[in-house]
Amino acid sequence: MKTGLGFLVSALRCEIDELEQLAHTCALVVTIGRLVHALQRERGISNVLLVSGGMRFAAQRATQVAESQALAQAVREAFDALDSQGRRPGNGARLFSRIAWVLPGLNALPELRHRVGALSLDAAASTTAFSKLIAGLLAVVFEAADGATNPEISRRLVAMFNFMQGKELAGQERACGASAFASGRNDSARQQQWLHLIDSQEHCFELFAEFSDAGPAELWRSIQPPAQMAELERLRRIACAAPSGVALDTELSQSWFDCCTRRIDGMQAVEERLATALRELCEQKTAQARAELQAHEALLGSAADGPDAAQAFSLFLEAPATAVEATPAPATYGRQLERSILDMVQEQSRRLQAMSDELDTVRAALNERKLVERAKGLLMAHRRISEEEAHKMLRQTAMNQNRRLIEVAESVLTMAELLPSDIPR
Amino acid sequence: MKTGLGFLVSALRCEIDELEQLAHTCALVVTIGRLVHALQRERGISNVLLVSGGMRFAAQRATQVAESQALAQAVREAFDALDSQGRRPGNGARLFSRIAWVLPGLNALPELRHRVGALSLDAAASTTAFSKLIAGLLAVVFEAADGATNPEISRRLVAMFNFMQGKELAGQERACGASAFASGRNDSARQQQWLHLIDSQEHCFELFAEFSDAGPAELWRSIQPPAQMAELERLRRIACAAPSGVALDTELSQSWFDCCTRRIDGMQAVEERLATALRELCEQKTAQARAELQAHEALLGSAADGPDAAQAFSLFLEAPATAVEATPAPATYGRQLERSILDMVQEQSRRLQAMSDELDTVRAALNERKLVERAKGLLMAHRRISEEEAHKMLRQTAMNQNRRLIEVAESVLTMAELLPSDIPR
Repeated sequence: MKTGLGFLVSALRCEIDELEQLAHTCALVVTIGRLVHALQRERGISNVLLVSGGMRFAAQRATQVAESQALAQAVREAFDALDSQGRRPGNGARLFSRIAWVLPGLNALPELRHRVGALSLDAAASTTAFSKLIAGLLAVVFEAADGATNPEISRRLVAMFNFMQGKELAGQERACGASAFASGRNDSARQQQWLHLIDSQEHCFELFAEFSDAGPAELWRSIQPPAQMAELERLRRIACAAPSGVALDTELSQSWFDCCTRRIDGMQAVEERLATALRELCEQKTAQARAELQAHEALLGSAADGPDAAQAFSLFLEAPATAVEATPAPATYGRQLERSILDMVQEQSRRLQAMSDELDTVRAALNERKLVERAKGLLMAHRRISEEEAHKMLRQTAMNQNRRLIEVAESVLTMAELLPSDIPR
Repeated sequence: MKTGLGFLVSALRCEIDELEQLAHTCALVVTIGRLVHALQRERGISNVLLVSGGMRFAAQRATQVAESQALAQAVREAFDALDSQGRRPGNGARLFSRIAWVLPGLNALPELRHRVGALSLDAAASTTAFSKLIAGLLAVVFEAADGATNPEISRRLVAMFNFMQGKELAGQERACGASAFASGRNDSARQQQWLHLIDSQEHCFELFAEFSDAGPAELWRSIQPPAQMAELERLRRIACAAPSGVALDTELSQSWFDCCTRRIDGMQAVEERLATALRELCEQKTAQARAELQAHEALLGSAADGPDAAQAFSLFLEAPATAVEATPAPATYGRQLERSILDMVQEQSRRLQAMSDELDTVRAALNERKLVERAKGLLMAHRRISEEEAHKMLRQTAMNQNRRLIEVAESVLTMAELLPSDIPR
């Protein structure tokens, strides 16, 4: 029969298992981040190629495609590695399901590239295809962040996910602005979409700043020098504050693209910093838990069968529950070993409770996205529309009513309670 | 390289692993329920023995002790079995930590019994010791309910935990009333405590009714015939509505004990029904997931490498996201197999999302207890008092202000935000 101390050791082993799995998950997230960056560049280059009728960026594209291919291969290997580790705690099923969803997208890349090379689809269709694939990859990152069971690591993953999402929105903004300036005019529909991209982007970076530790947050501030931001804001203002349909200076096209690209490439540096911090944190947490396990196991070897029944009675059943910060029992108490085992149990249980509380807080930041997804699903079912249409409907309502997307999603979900019960919730 | 369908299969395997672990957890919960029932009886019998100076219930006690011992052994074996299954998803560390905490209490039982037999401790001390052990066992059940990852099973475990908790409160009420009637008087402190036991008990049974399926809830209503409830309420009223210090008819002592005992023994039948329903549900869910896995694996064998790149392109990147309830693609579409794989991914991902949403809802019912625990920990740290004292303080405040315990706990936690930062949260 296992003793109390034996179960303490089991509890620690569970923690170590989870930390080791988390380390693999974090490595996957970092690899996905690099692929997303490559795909974002390939999306931009492909656009220029298509818009220029194949005249520009053919060489750059070849280099970029090779890089994307190598990184896609790395992501596939990371998927396989994740699977070969067997049982995963908590959200394993959801994580694998997201991977199952995104893999056909990776399989579709060669055909997409073939059509881009043959100029047989237009820039908008190419952008949509790349963006859909990137969204699928980010959904895997989201699930990884949602499944983390250590609050400090979860906190960094939430920062990372929001940064990646913000970066993708910045990429979409670059594309949106590029076609506005290139076409020489803007209209109110695109202006609205553009402003929405700015808003959502800023919200992501706020969440990033809230959950990141100091290093990456500091780097992020430093790579946005005021002069560069002033230029970005000036170009945004020119395009978005102009009355609908007014002509735009097509000469600004290159300035816009360069300004956005400098910013987005800088983001990649922040992401790499986040990745390093994440890896170090995983290593540190695992080392810490291992050291504790070793100490416990040594004690387990020496403690024989633990306190005898009379001692257990006094310790467990007579002792008042000790206050969290109570001073330790005086050394003259005469049964240090047994008391220290019970203290260890209390200490561990308090630590686990604190971790669980902290985790709830961090995860709340992910709930927003979940609520929006749920509202979308509801609209899709109720109005028999596609996901894109549902998203557009939510966004449009938010813009019309000057409310945040999450507020509209919450209204939709509340309303659903009042709908007939044959509507799936 | 694994295909999308391969990862679908991995996702299903994760689900099956978790269901199998859940089945073991449920078996543990049922075993703990039986031990708690035995310990509740032993607590009552020990009380009578101690109050009667060893004159009454000596034979009953011997029988009851033997039963408790056998069940404690079964619980220890279930603990060990749980541990030998290795890695546990999600809250494994917390579950093992709760077990580590309760094991010294089980070790202390022989010494407790020795002192009861020697009449060397009083009824109140014996009751406290048994109650502390039972609370530790219920904390294991709580953790088991909190860690369940299948919403339907989680729902039943929440019903079960609340029923067990309500039953324990009913047991404490029996003891409280028994000593009031036996002593021939009641005072306002005991009246307040008594009314609190009734309130908390009713709250537990409400939660049970909310989360239980129809069978056990119906049984619970049927074992509380109006005549019996009227008698219970009459005795409660006599003792609790009387002015403080007024004499009570000691003749009512036996009626009170019998009335409560009939009710509590009836609860045991409900608990057994809950246990059966839980086991059946686990079996059914596992069988269902296994059948689905088999179907997927068969498909995996026949599907070779899945759709080729051109098909993947059309399916993943060109297809609009299908609405949840969209009609299936017409049969003339010509690539049923590949489409059906993508449909399966979408279908599974929707199912997992719905499960996760439902799980959040069910778990919210457990948050109440967590908030109260957190508020207690805060008071313990801040005022350097014991857990019992902290609980009493919360309860007293709730009674004084005529508020629910959870409301007081929330106020304490809100207040903590305003306290100096050196206070641990």
